[in-house]
Amino acid sequence: MSQDNRRVLALAGGVGGAKLALGLSTLLPAEALTVAVNTADDFEHLGLSISPDLDTVMYTLAGLANPETGWGRRDESWNAMEALGQLGGETWFRLGDKDLATHVERTRRLRAGETLSTVTRDLAKRLGITCAIVPMTDNPVRTVVTTDQGDLAFQDWFVRLRCEPAVQRVRFAGADKARAAPALLDMANLRGVIFCPSNPFVSVAPILAIPGVRTALQGTKRPRVAVTPIVGGQAIKGPAAKMLAELGHDVSALGVARYYKGLIDGFVLDQTDSGLKGGIEDFGIKVHVTDTMMRTDEDKRRLAAATLEFVDALARSLQHS
Amino acid sequence: MSQDNRRVLALAGGVGGAKLALGLSTLLPAEALTVAVNTADDFEHLGLSISPDLDTVMYTLAGLANPETGWGRRDESWNAMEALGQLGGETWFRLGDKDLATHVERTRRLRAGETLSTVTRDLAKRLGITCAIVPMTDNPVRTVVTTDQGDLAFQDWFVRLRCEPAVQRVRFAGADKARAAPALLDMANLRGVIFCPSNPFVSVAPILAIPGVRTALQGTKRPRVAVTPIVGGQAIKGPAAKMLAELGHDVSALGVARYYKGLIDGFVLDQTDSGLKGGIEDFGIKVHVTDTMMRTDEDKRRLAAATLEFVDALARSLQHS
Repeated sequence: MSQDNRRVLALAGGVGGAKLALGLSTLLPAEALTVAVNTADDFEHLGLSISPDLDTVMYTLAGLANPETGWGRRDESWNAMEALGQLGGETWFRLGDKDLATHVERTRRLRAGETLSTVTRDLAKRLGITCAIVPMTDNPVRTVVTTDQGDLAFQDWFVRLRCEPAVQRVRFAGADKARAAPALLDMANLRGVIFCPSNPFVSVAPILAIPGVRTALQGTKRPRVAVTPIVGGQAIKGPAAKMLAELGHDVSALGVARYYKGLIDGFVLDQTDSGLKGGIEDFGIKVHVTDTMMRTDEDKRRLAAATLEFVDALARSLQHS
Repeated sequence: MSQDNRRVLALAGGVGGAKLALGLSTLLPAEALTVAVNTADDFEHLGLSISPDLDTVMYTLAGLANPETGWGRRDESWNAMEALGQLGGETWFRLGDKDLATHVERTRRLRAGETLSTVTRDLAKRLGITCAIVPMTDNPVRTVVTTDQGDLAFQDWFVRLRCEPAVQRVRFAGADKARAAPALLDMANLRGVIFCPSNPFVSVAPILAIPGVRTALQGTKRPRVAVTPIVGGQAIKGPAAKMLAELGHDVSALGVARYYKGLIDGFVLDQTDSGLKGGIEDFGIKVHVTDTMMRTDEDKRRLAAATLEFVDALARSLQHS
């Protein structure tokens, strides 16, 4: 499998996407993996440019992620945050001391005129990451969640209000004017596209909202496979299940597959949900059933391998059709 | 002594100034002490607005200063700095984790349009400081050191190059357009002015360079007393002795007293240097000889008390003259 040097394009948000990306990175040559990451969660906080999903992917691939929280760095200390509280600063968005260095350095370089993709590439390289982590765009795109409490900036809703206000609508301010990362538009020499098990509405949808991305994904003849972020009607992490319900979808892998209909050829379904296989196949989507839970690094590697095999199997059947 | 509610105005730079200010703060009612602090050492670093002298004074008065380094906070950790190094960031100016919170919060508030004096007042209040710490100005003033290696920004010379390049000249860019803190111009209800044992050339001179300050100090009838920053031809801390030599002054308390001639009525001389008493008196400056070394908090209190007594004694003799 690792003899195939064609590129895998993985679309990722935070924790789930990062885990599968880590699995893929252990199987693929560095030049054969591009992880395109949602930046619509990014925000300015404490005067710093914070890119939560990019950092989760970066820390995870570098082996530095905090396995307990799903965000931030492992072996972290909180002295700056404590001191900030003492000074009357805002502490609802927790930034560890080591993590703070990432935001300080990123912010400094962005202010100096560098692009987010350049800064991301350099930071990732410094942390020993060899595959490509690319922000979906270098332009500012910001998720706005319309809720029963009005419009909220994503992190206000997600962190400060702990996803509690009911979601009525999600939009991505600035997406219409953003330029997609070249890796999201160039479908040449592609092995396949993997929609990582990230939140469809706030992790994958922003990537799809960048002009040209949806068209490029619709136009490619290469297999496009989504890995379910929903198992047994529950999100492994985050508000995906709650959002499925509030936005009027089936709260299940079927709801996710329907949401991706027309964009994907295959769907990796958890074995718990094998009863949904027929329903998803009715959308014209092939289904691979496996254990999708990624607790250990071996789990991540195994799910990544199963997904790549599914991609390659779909490639053969697409050629025959 | 503490029954006197008239204001003491202390001019301070970093460590030495902060120590005497701490001594004064233990003797005076909160409303009777204003510490006006040099801001010409301030700089932008890592995208953060850093005010080294303000912070040294603030941390010292709050009992949070690091007694070993003379800068930064006690019980400090360095995880952000270590992570920054790992990311390829600049680490020559050491910022501890807790200290970093001060710079992040100050920077955020300055960017939001608040003045340095407002931010300083609020941070100091948060740290339990009751007397007034005022930046010499809210406008940017930057010390530029002309050396045998050319013009250098102050922190480049002071920290990065460890004061090694020989100093030919010091100037304060922006000083001519800066507006002095009101406390530096208003000599009403003043008990006296104390020039703290700070570097005359890079801590006190910038304060004097703000339009109106020198004239206000020259015009007051209240006693103005300098405490020597030089003992036995050595600076207690920092490059004052080296600068005295390189700028062509006597490397002694006498050199400092001559530099302040016309601005001060009294000079607190260390007992080690009692032989210089007559020379200083020849400038028309009264001299009080005492132990000026401030190792312990009791030392600081004692020197502050001696200086205040000297101020009050000078007030009586100025009335009689």
